[in-house]
Amino acid sequence: MSRLTTFQTKEIQQTETEMVRFVREHTNNQRLQESMLYSIDAGGKRIRPLLLLATIASFNKEISLGGYQTAAALEMIHTYSLIHDDLPAMDNDDLRRGKPTNHKVYGDAMAILAGDGLLTLAFELVSMAEIEPTEKVLLLQLLAKASGTHGMVAGQAADMQAEGNKLSIEELMAIHQRKTGALIRFAVVAGGILANQSEGTLEKLDQLAKHLGLAFQIRDDLLDVVSTTEELGKETNRDELLEKSTYPGLLGLEGAKKALTDELTAAEAILNELALLSTFDAELLKEVCGLFYL
Amino acid sequence: MSRLTTFQTKEIQQTETEMVRFVREHTNNQRLQESMLYSIDAGGKRIRPLLLLATIASFNKEISLGGYQTAAALEMIHTYSLIHDDLPAMDNDDLRRGKPTNHKVYGDAMAILAGDGLLTLAFELVSMAEIEPTEKVLLLQLLAKASGTHGMVAGQAADMQAEGNKLSIEELMAIHQRKTGALIRFAVVAGGILANQSEGTLEKLDQLAKHLGLAFQIRDDLLDVVSTTEELGKETNRDELLEKSTYPGLLGLEGAKKALTDELTAAEAILNELALLSTFDAELLKEVCGLFYL
Repeated sequence: MSRLTTFQTKEIQQTETEMVRFVREHTNNQRLQESMLYSIDAGGKRIRPLLLLATIASFNKEISLGGYQTAAALEMIHTYSLIHDDLPAMDNDDLRRGKPTNHKVYGDAMAILAGDGLLTLAFELVSMAEIEPTEKVLLLQLLAKASGTHGMVAGQAADMQAEGNKLSIEELMAIHQRKTGALIRFAVVAGGILANQSEGTLEKLDQLAKHLGLAFQIRDDLLDVVSTTEELGKETNRDELLEKSTYPGLLGLEGAKKALTDELTAAEAILNELALLSTFDAELLKEVCGLFYL
Repeated sequence: MSRLTTFQTKEIQQTETEMVRFVREHTNNQRLQESMLYSIDAGGKRIRPLLLLATIASFNKEISLGGYQTAAALEMIHTYSLIHDDLPAMDNDDLRRGKPTNHKVYGDAMAILAGDGLLTLAFELVSMAEIEPTEKVLLLQLLAKASGTHGMVAGQAADMQAEGNKLSIEELMAIHQRKTGALIRFAVVAGGILANQSEGTLEKLDQLAKHLGLAFQIRDDLLDVVSTTEELGKETNRDELLEKSTYPGLLGLEGAKKALTDELTAAEAILNELALLSTFDAELLKEVCGLFYL
């Protein structure tokens, strides 16, 4: 097994345990709990917790309980956003990670509440985490910014408004920097904060995460075109159906593949710079970058 | 003007200013911002900020910026809950505070995002508030608990599941303690925390708030029966239509009126106990209790 596979197995499992434990212990309604756990248990790539935890580990720091709790909260926010995005009023998706979407199983009303519940639980979890108060407040500020109306929610609104309009590549990037980029930047920067890094290093980590965020989105757009529903576990060619602008749509298939490689090359260059710090080992995050290739 | 009227005019206006300022400065999408401000501007009784701020003032403390920020965040959470509750998938209400509901103006998708946005902004606002870190973390924990899956969201789920079933009075109270009671308890207890009160005093404030929360709900149920749509600014007799159990439904009109008086008498008794503290002036909160009578 590669170092990454070992890391993923152990650390993602811990994060999932923390998520499930917190949902079970902090929910006062059975059906609501089932609905939230259904979407958490559906799995997924857990790329955000992986980035957060791999960043901590790259500074040769042991991952504390507070790290797992922050990673769990981040994945809860991602999970809530999928539940709400899949609703009939939004993207109207029936399938997610090879399973019926939350609202297909629990109904629209419960799916709305499951999303609201996971979003609120994420803030509860960080607010109760084993993290020193000043650092905790900083993480809460950054998490709220990344997931809220500067970040993910604003990007989702812009994405929805853009349906049916042909965007420029700059407009498309501006949407994705909020919609998916902001949470990925939080993941990497939060890892740096939990590893007690300096402002300068956090700034470098943020640059790294910007490239990874774009790579993630370009790859996602490409998979929507080149995969089958079976491979992807969700319906494909949805972007075309929803008349969404995409990287392959704007740049062509080869152009999008090149853009993906360019972003990952830029990310790896920053990792090499970070590796000049004696405390930073770039190998694990380079392996994570490898996951972002097609 | 009564002391309460003066207090309301000044302090609620400050809270509203803080809400609007924060939404404007922290939203990166025009239409999303409009949609959130539409529901904030629709007004309402602002009973939660009033309870929070009146509690601080009752301890003869000046209200700091952190107090207004916490009150503003609390009202944002209440506002988000109304936007989501009114959705067609939930209560399907067309009218709120005399105006078309958010989704009637902005569509279901934007209303979902406006709710998600306000919920996230509330945590961002408290996390950035002018409050000392340890106290801030405590307020964030309590706010998440009260509004999330122990509290309001769980109560909303239970309320929805109960539609069409005849509940006992105990079951009805258990739902309302989560659905509306938890945020009202947060309001009063947060006021005590911001006024630097002891554990024992916070416990008394919590008891007070439990009675106020029940009074609030009984009054709300009564108004749904005895008011016209014009008086109430929203559709009436909704509870009957949705086959919801209510206090008048379970106790009769006179029985519900008596239950309301009983809760307010109990609240006033606790205020009299609190007034034994030399630092506590019960008059303002007694006037607030007066608002809860029919």
